Amino acid sequence: MPAGIHVDHVAVVVPDIEAALQFWRDGLGLPVDRVEEIPSQQASVAFLPAGESEIELVRPTAADSGTGRFLAKRGPGVHHICFRVNDLTEMLAHLKSMGIRLINEQPVPGADGKRLAFIHPESASGVLVELYELPADRAR
Amino acid sequence: MPAGIHVDHVAVVVPDIEAALQFWRDGLGLPVDRVEEIPSQQASVAFLPAGESEIELVRPTAADSGTGRFLAKRGPGVHHICFRVNDLTEMLAHLKSMGIRLINEQPVPGADGKRLAFIHPESASGVLVELYELPADRAR
Repeated sequence: MPAGIHVDHVAVVVPDIEAALQFWRDGLGLPVDRVEEIPSQQASVAFLPAGESEIELVRPTAADSGTGRFLAKRGPGVHHICFRVNDLTEMLAHLKSMGIRLINEQPVPGADGKRLAFIHPESASGVLVELYELPADRAR
Repeated sequence: MPAGIHVDHVAVVVPDIEAALQFWRDGLGLPVDRVEEIPSQQASVAFLPAGESEIELVRPTAADSGTGRFLAKRGPGVHHICFRVNDLTEMLAHLKSMGIRLINEQPVPGADGKRLAFIHPESASGVLVELYELPADRAR
């Protein structure tokens, strides 16, 4: 298997971050690393580290964004799972060669320079899967 | 925060494990540790390690089980997220004192001697959350 693949984060769509933190922070005891407005995602996101992964609480700031529509249609819940991989370009080529349906056939830039791509839930057991490549200088 | 809390596994309900493995194993490259029939859960489960977590592919073997009803109602997708905690009894008492709705107010025995409990999605941002305590002799 590709060395180092692991769960980078699980994103949970919520209508209210402060209310959600009553469970995830005060109840479960996860620390809050930061809460950021991310205009490119039309969302406010709280990042809560849990071991080598993070729980991301995503509050849509626009009703017509992907997460905004998700919240309106399904209510709060798990939006996607992100795996960290070593070589995203190679992984996408491999998945495409297998006929797996990709939302992004090429890596797209994320909020902080990282490269990412989404796989369609149709090809991933109904799960929206994100793949994320750590910039080389931050690899671990 | 409680030391050592991390994502133990993410459970994904699927109608067909072999078909699901085409993505998770052959596509993403996760190894398959084992596939087990678990009569007490009325399910067949494939365990795929990913770093310190696992992806569990759960195929219901009974239509009227929890995962069987989930699959019929929602189709395949994320069923629950499990966190490993150090002291489950203490955690449940803390959560209950906060008014968080628990499915199991006391730890229940899992398939292999581990103690576990579920938190109601109503109190956890729409996410079915499992808490799992590693037996003391296997703590890490």
